[in-house]
Amino acid sequence: MAKRPFVLISVFILIFVLVGSVFPEDQMNNLRVNSQRLEQRITALAEFGKNAHGGLDRVAFSDADIRGRKYLISLMKDAGLDVRVDEAGNIIGHREGQEPDLPPIMFGSHSDTVPDGGKYDGALGVLGAIECAQVLNEQNIQTKHPLEVVVFTDEEGGLVGSRAMTGTLTLDALEVISHSMKTIRQGIIDLGGNPEKLDRVARKDGDIKAFLEIHIEQGKILETKNIDIGVVEGIVGISWWNITIEGFSNHAGTTPMDMRQDALLAASHLIIAVNRVVTSVSGRQVGTVGRIKAEPGAPNVIPGKVVMSLELRDLSGEKIQSLYEKIEKEAQTIAQQTDTQISFSSIDAMAIPAPTDPRIRKYIDESAKELDLSTLYMPSGAGHDAQDMAKIAPTGMIFIPSVGGISHSPKEYSRPEDVVNGVNVLLHTILKIDQETLD
Amino acid sequence: MAKRPFVLISVFILIFVLVGSVFPEDQMNNLRVNSQRLEQRITALAEFGKNAHGGLDRVAFSDADIRGRKYLISLMKDAGLDVRVDEAGNIIGHREGQEPDLPPIMFGSHSDTVPDGGKYDGALGVLGAIECAQVLNEQNIQTKHPLEVVVFTDEEGGLVGSRAMTGTLTLDALEVISHSMKTIRQGIIDLGGNPEKLDRVARKDGDIKAFLEIHIEQGKILETKNIDIGVVEGIVGISWWNITIEGFSNHAGTTPMDMRQDALLAASHLIIAVNRVVTSVSGRQVGTVGRIKAEPGAPNVIPGKVVMSLELRDLSGEKIQSLYEKIEKEAQTIAQQTDTQISFSSIDAMAIPAPTDPRIRKYIDESAKELDLSTLYMPSGAGHDAQDMAKIAPTGMIFIPSVGGISHSPKEYSRPEDVVNGVNVLLHTILKIDQETLD
Repeated sequence: MAKRPFVLISVFILIFVLVGSVFPEDQMNNLRVNSQRLEQRITALAEFGKNAHGGLDRVAFSDADIRGRKYLISLMKDAGLDVRVDEAGNIIGHREGQEPDLPPIMFGSHSDTVPDGGKYDGALGVLGAIECAQVLNEQNIQTKHPLEVVVFTDEEGGLVGSRAMTGTLTLDALEVISHSMKTIRQGIIDLGGNPEKLDRVARKDGDIKAFLEIHIEQGKILETKNIDIGVVEGIVGISWWNITIEGFSNHAGTTPMDMRQDALLAASHLIIAVNRVVTSVSGRQVGTVGRIKAEPGAPNVIPGKVVMSLELRDLSGEKIQSLYEKIEKEAQTIAQQTDTQISFSSIDAMAIPAPTDPRIRKYIDESAKELDLSTLYMPSGAGHDAQDMAKIAPTGMIFIPSVGGISHSPKEYSRPEDVVNGVNVLLHTILKIDQETLD
Repeated sequence: MAKRPFVLISVFILIFVLVGSVFPEDQMNNLRVNSQRLEQRITALAEFGKNAHGGLDRVAFSDADIRGRKYLISLMKDAGLDVRVDEAGNIIGHREGQEPDLPPIMFGSHSDTVPDGGKYDGALGVLGAIECAQVLNEQNIQTKHPLEVVVFTDEEGGLVGSRAMTGTLTLDALEVISHSMKTIRQGIIDLGGNPEKLDRVARKDGDIKAFLEIHIEQGKILETKNIDIGVVEGIVGISWWNITIEGFSNHAGTTPMDMRQDALLAASHLIIAVNRVVTSVSGRQVGTVGRIKAEPGAPNVIPGKVVMSLELRDLSGEKIQSLYEKIEKEAQTIAQQTDTQISFSSIDAMAIPAPTDPRIRKYIDESAKELDLSTLYMPSGAGHDAQDMAKIAPTGMIFIPSVGGISHSPKEYSRPEDVVNGVNVLLHTILKIDQETLD
């Protein structure tokens, strides 16, 4: 009588082993994430911090942020992850690998928003990562490497969590007042972290097998070109300058046109020169004058001084430098022609270009193609946690189309089919990395 | 014994009549104002409202303004004038003419300053007028026409006193908050006026024989061309527009150069077009973009909206209109090329051109030449009380050089020789008008 259960169990084990050994590739290839669940969770997370006109005010360290994180922790536990909050406030969900001593494959993003932001920026990367973990859990697939789902602290306030993880969050940065009006130091405490022990958070090169992030494009290149998946080549470097143009402020009525030293006229020539220089060479570099102040700023006074910003972005630091030099040269010509002085001062807060790992780009591209999705290799013009992580780990980023290219706005939207496509590519990229050697 | 005094008196009368009939023209031609006294009074008036760095904060209705006016009233009385303050707060010093029923020749300016202004703007016109009256008084010269020295109320806050005198000060204007933070209504009361009875101040066409004003040029045309006296052809008309440029605000990192609708780039093209259009035709018209605001105004966001000012000035209203139409046409081309929308809205607060009287220009020119001074016919690019007075009386304006063309500034300066030249021209122009027919 005692033998029957044993036989039954043996038969089940036999079937399981046979299926597992005969069909594991098919099982893997057919693995898909749950679109409906993903959409339901994107909607649910967007309830935290929702404002009167449908935007999200879930800025880092706010009550909404803290409540949103609790919701995410519950989802992570539901996905079978072992969850902890590190000293920087990052939420980390660990899933054991077949070989627990291997470095983990990490994937995730952030859950804080800009003021009046949208429901995809950051959220997609976090919920997509949890969804991948949950599907693997449901399908009882144990990867060789441990997996770690991460929700980074305060991305929008300066990549706080990922900087802590790469050991580059400075003590000064802790004193910065964040969107929530708390210092970052206080914010980290409120998330359950410990700003005095940030050294425990920092990981070294080699500690992480790979880092992956899925994100909305925040531009409209994919939408315009009707492409499903952006394979991110890297996060562009960003350089900022303050440009000061000194002319001579004078009475607009009594100063003839040929006796003027109009700083705003000079600034206008320079803004056009920036556009001309940046578009004069091939590539995807961008240059922007976004801020301008003309003094004294009265309709009846010739502007004597203009201060304006210059931002240049590209995947190549050399190209940024070369564009800057051309702009600076044109500025000196304009200064002579307009009888003004033009000076540039570089601003410290800039990002160096962060290329993604070419092998991971290939895995993302292959995963997408196996899912019958079209791909485009492209830079990320915006900053992401991935740019920090690229300093210590091979990194990959997956973009999905943003409708209208709109981001940091209540109008931010990505279609459910694009969302699920992107997360399926993430899942399969994780599985490929798990099987392959990156070294 | 009683005969001696009679004889003596008769001899004196004889001598007086002889001298008076033989030398009156010489006496008139050799009449000169007192340079030393003028300079001393310019310095003395500049004590009222002097700020820490040597500028003048004698804004209308301030304590400094009220104290300065008391000083001026004492000078006017000293010059033999019969002084009163009218219902608009204008100070009027009357000097009887040989024919008291003739309309008076009026001359003067204002004594208020802009915040942190200089010591010549307005002050020269007032102190020069008092000096002319004083010299005539000292020389016992009685003109045919009555003379009136005027110190207008709050010129810098909107030509308040001269507008009241021409019956064009609106009830709305009385509620405007002036530089002193008082309403103009309250300010007029504080000067001893009565804003309820402004109808008593208004003069009709024909009530005033002529109005004259001497003023610093506030530009550097006379200085540059080394000319002593500017014969003002008129006060230019001033038209203001608000220009709104609507593009699309977007992420500076994720929006490729060829997908941008950059409102600031469009604005730059338009600012250059304003300069090009205004300088494309001969003449002394000026066009200025003095105020600009780009939104949202962050270095990493493409400006979606720019609002900026446009000011055009010329002696001819038709020319202003024609320049505007050319600029507006260029704007539409720029809008198409930059994928933006550009709209213009005209602002009410503009001045129509106010030509001076050609006969008075001639008298100014002749007076200057008789004093061996060089002259230049020129427009006044700035507004003055004279522009209102031109509505009801033949008007003339005399300019003297401004060093460096600087005005509305503590650095405002005119050399003593230019000051005395100008006031001598004013004196002789008064005497010419007194003798001549303007009708």
